[in-house]
Amino acid sequence: MKKHTVVFLPSGKSGEINDGASLLDAAGLLGVTLDSICGGNGICGKCKVLVKEGMSGLGGLTDAESEFIKPSDGPTRLACQCRIHGNAILYAPTVERFARKGALGIPVSLDPAVKKYFVRVDPPSMQDMGKGDRERLMEALHAQHGLSGLSLDYFALMGLQDALRKGRWDATVSVWRGKEIVRLEPGLSEAAFGLAVDIGTTTVAGYLCDLTSGKIINTVSAMNPQSVHGEDVMSRISYSMANPDGLKEMQGEIINCVNGIIGETGLSAADIVDMTVVCNTVMHHIFLGVNPAGIGVAPFVPAVTRPLDVKARELGININQSSYVHFLPAVAGFVGPDSAAVLIAEEPYRQDEKVLIIDIGTNGEILLGDNNGVICAACATGPAFEGAQIKSGMRAAEGAIEKVRIDAGTKEPSLGIIGNVKAKGICGSGIIDAVAELFRAGIIDKSGRLEPPRTKNISDTERLRRDAGGRPEYVLAWPEETQTGAAITITQADVRAVQLAKGALYAGAKLLMRRMGIEKVDKVILAGAFGSYINKESALTIGMFPECALENIRAAGNAAGEGAVLALLNMGKREEAQEEVMKLNHLEIATDPDFQEEFLAAMDIPHR
Amino acid sequence: MKKHTVVFLPSGKSGEINDGASLLDAAGLLGVTLDSICGGNGICGKCKVLVKEGMSGLGGLTDAESEFIKPSDGPTRLACQCRIHGNAILYAPTVERFARKGALGIPVSLDPAVKKYFVRVDPPSMQDMGKGDRERLMEALHAQHGLSGLSLDYFALMGLQDALRKGRWDATVSVWRGKEIVRLEPGLSEAAFGLAVDIGTTTVAGYLCDLTSGKIINTVSAMNPQSVHGEDVMSRISYSMANPDGLKEMQGEIINCVNGIIGETGLSAADIVDMTVVCNTVMHHIFLGVNPAGIGVAPFVPAVTRPLDVKARELGININQSSYVHFLPAVAGFVGPDSAAVLIAEEPYRQDEKVLIIDIGTNGEILLGDNNGVICAACATGPAFEGAQIKSGMRAAEGAIEKVRIDAGTKEPSLGIIGNVKAKGICGSGIIDAVAELFRAGIIDKSGRLEPPRTKNISDTERLRRDAGGRPEYVLAWPEETQTGAAITITQADVRAVQLAKGALYAGAKLLMRRMGIEKVDKVILAGAFGSYINKESALTIGMFPECALENIRAAGNAAGEGAVLALLNMGKREEAQEEVMKLNHLEIATDPDFQEEFLAAMDIPHR
Repeated sequence: MKKHTVVFLPSGKSGEINDGASLLDAAGLLGVTLDSICGGNGICGKCKVLVKEGMSGLGGLTDAESEFIKPSDGPTRLACQCRIHGNAILYAPTVERFARKGALGIPVSLDPAVKKYFVRVDPPSMQDMGKGDRERLMEALHAQHGLSGLSLDYFALMGLQDALRKGRWDATVSVWRGKEIVRLEPGLSEAAFGLAVDIGTTTVAGYLCDLTSGKIINTVSAMNPQSVHGEDVMSRISYSMANPDGLKEMQGEIINCVNGIIGETGLSAADIVDMTVVCNTVMHHIFLGVNPAGIGVAPFVPAVTRPLDVKARELGININQSSYVHFLPAVAGFVGPDSAAVLIAEEPYRQDEKVLIIDIGTNGEILLGDNNGVICAACATGPAFEGAQIKSGMRAAEGAIEKVRIDAGTKEPSLGIIGNVKAKGICGSGIIDAVAELFRAGIIDKSGRLEPPRTKNISDTERLRRDAGGRPEYVLAWPEETQTGAAITITQADVRAVQLAKGALYAGAKLLMRRMGIEKVDKVILAGAFGSYINKESALTIGMFPECALENIRAAGNAAGEGAVLALLNMGKREEAQEEVMKLNHLEIATDPDFQEEFLAAMDIPHR
Repeated sequence: MKKHTVVFLPSGKSGEINDGASLLDAAGLLGVTLDSICGGNGICGKCKVLVKEGMSGLGGLTDAESEFIKPSDGPTRLACQCRIHGNAILYAPTVERFARKGALGIPVSLDPAVKKYFVRVDPPSMQDMGKGDRERLMEALHAQHGLSGLSLDYFALMGLQDALRKGRWDATVSVWRGKEIVRLEPGLSEAAFGLAVDIGTTTVAGYLCDLTSGKIINTVSAMNPQSVHGEDVMSRISYSMANPDGLKEMQGEIINCVNGIIGETGLSAADIVDMTVVCNTVMHHIFLGVNPAGIGVAPFVPAVTRPLDVKARELGININQSSYVHFLPAVAGFVGPDSAAVLIAEEPYRQDEKVLIIDIGTNGEILLGDNNGVICAACATGPAFEGAQIKSGMRAAEGAIEKVRIDAGTKEPSLGIIGNVKAKGICGSGIIDAVAELFRAGIIDKSGRLEPPRTKNISDTERLRRDAGGRPEYVLAWPEETQTGAAITITQADVRAVQLAKGALYAGAKLLMRRMGIEKVDKVILAGAFGSYINKESALTIGMFPECALENIRAAGNAAGEGAVLALLNMGKREEAQEEVMKLNHLEIATDPDFQEEFLAAMDIPHR
């Protein structure tokens, strides 16, 4: 057999290739990956290569090539169509299938659970009467893509005949995890989308991703409609216990909400072929219609912690009806799939440095570790950081005081207000700032007491005053400076609430450090939207978490949402979540004999 | 370690067993199978053994034993509870797990797809907070029954918490094919039932089986409600094509019908944990809601031939909602899962003799072969054998003439009538008898002509006459002998219809024999209820099938239904069906160049 030397640039991979082989086969033999969705059928036009030398040995353009190659493309061929009859040097751009960067800046490759395959099925004939459409499809998938042992979802089976006939026996098949056909489309269809959903107790965020490029193309968020039944997870559990249909009702609410988000993406439901969900364990159970009551009482038992794949149609989720919704694994009753998502987004298990990750919400979840192991715990911070249980507290919306500075000399504050309007209240980041600045200005002491008796000059400012009940408070904004016409103050009770919340976080982190036998962490990651807004110095000043050099404290944004996106774009990240959650050491700190001691010490500012 | 000699009768298996081991462990070590559903937990009382010698070395009865052993049992112990401290001779009745006998009289063991396991789950504690109920259940199933890698159906997951708590962490788990948990019940629950369904174009039969004993405990049949849309499969296809919702309508009808059968079994839906379905390929597609149109036109393509498992709830079938409905494989468009069922019931592939199996219905399906290979074909017999297209034809119901004898001398008939009432019409077996007897009496000739010109004496009988249109007919019953007051006659057209039907069957069988290179078959099996009623001699006389010694012709009853039952009781029979169908050589006889010739020759009585 005559052979020719073929070189692929830029990799420089080269070898002797049999006369008559296609460039696509040559690339495969030499380990060069070319883009091709149609399996070498000359249908998709994706496998273009530039001919640097040797065009004369490659024959003329085939009909299929003429369809895809324009004069402006230069000396270009379709690798699957073009056959080798002489030496050639080709330029094949490296196929970049990197979806996103991981925590360490290492790219995460695009490897979604649902992949598309174009296939040409043999039309039926009197010669193969024992074969149904399904059997001929399976044979074609095996012959053209090496796929075998596939199952065919029942709903996809019902649409099989139409798809094959509409596409004149050409079809595009969407395969889930290399196991099951979840969609059949006539002809060639490249588009495939997925939705990553982060269900918070308060807000729900959907990230619509293009599964062919790995890009997030739309982000839609909505309020969790279950909020009418209570602000936190415990009140949702109570609602499900107190009302016979409470669970079904709340499940319906969240499913409607997610379907609303899907509607807002503007895509047809069938084009969304995969979905991942992260949330806390209570939201997880309610979404699944599984009783969350066990999570509410000791020993806080979830029904299930392992990852789940549930058919979208069984949940009533309006994506492609044969597709699955993937739920990331939970760690325990109060450390949910959202923590698993933070884990795979921040990858502490790949790092040499000791990383402390704090996800602050109604509950604070803490992860601590490095490549030698990771431990985790949930801290009952209470809702102070969300503005609840704070006299003038509000969510981070227009009119919220989000930044506070207090002049140590004059004790006068300067405020940053969302939307640059008159103040209406104070949100979480503002509260942390306020307490830190009150401490720095000497208005509260180490123990958190406003109006400390031994520092006479404090009373120099009118801002430190007593309310109608005689309780001390600090005035951040006078009535004429506010939208409501009432002063916005920080009360002694507010300071106490912040101390309790930050004390729980700090004590939890210290306890994990003690269990891990370390004195100091190398990095602190603040996960969650809230973490992006707080002032790191203020957080350190009040002692929200153990000391760490300022430059090593990083806000990671919605790391749980990022984890959901990664799990959507890369199947391996789902296995990783499962494996790392299994390895994770979960500490139940509320019952830990050392916790009380740590907690008491952590109540001081910054801490004892 | 001290050891004791333990002997199990009647097998005589014996060995040295460590002191303190249980009798159940000893049995396991010595290869003696004892019945036990609870996994040795002393819950089910199934592992009773009789102590022939050595009771004194077995300690006193435990509490668990006292619950199950009555004084009338004699010297009996529960093997799982009783510990060995001395030599002993025990009698353990052989566990007979044979469900039914196969075609060759070899027992088919009871090995259903859904099996039950009793399990004791560790209650949750603060020490294993990372484990949900699901994870603890899986660990217990692994530890107590060696089951691993199980999935848990979503609906079963929703009921998991309740089942575990109601049973105080004892539960019975129903596992499908060793893969998936499809039912969870609190405590110990032994009962398990399955339904085998044979869906005919005209009638539907359900066989309710006890999956713990292998016995058929109830048989329920019903008319196929689709009959209003036409008598045969082609008219059903036409109805689905002519009416936009025709397919959905007919699917709903058959599902309601099967649900009606389930209702009549008197069992609660959840107790039926498995179901098998056999039917022709058109009924199969309609049941699945899959368009049957392709089967109606060349090349007669089904959507799917491979076996399918579809969740009962997705079909709307009212058995245990997490269970599957198993559809046996189809062979081709006109050789359906019912033929696959006949195949595994009659097992020609295990026989040395050449077996010809004829399943007579609106279509006749023929299987021919032995342990060297089996071939099959469908013959368009038309509905003559069902009494359709016959002037006085009717179903085999009260008033139907089912047996006919004609005195060769007097030409007078004697009739057997169902229910011993006045005649109303004639059914299939009666028609075959009538034509055979008319031939034997010389009233019709080899070519099927009534009133043959050359046999003068025929006109001696008044029974051979001409109808109003001058066409010859033979009077079986005079007006005064019938319920309708009109004579029941066999017309020339009737004889022609029988010739066409039997000719198709005979020619099909001969063609298969020719393809297999054989001159003679060793056995003829008549499958289907119809086969049980026809007179074998009459069938041979008219030439319904190739010659065979009378004693080697056997009516097998509803072999398709039997195959459905076998597939329900023994999982291996499902694999066998799939494997044997794959090996089966399907002949499309209508397009075979030799068929016309065979068919013409086969029209003669008995044949040319």
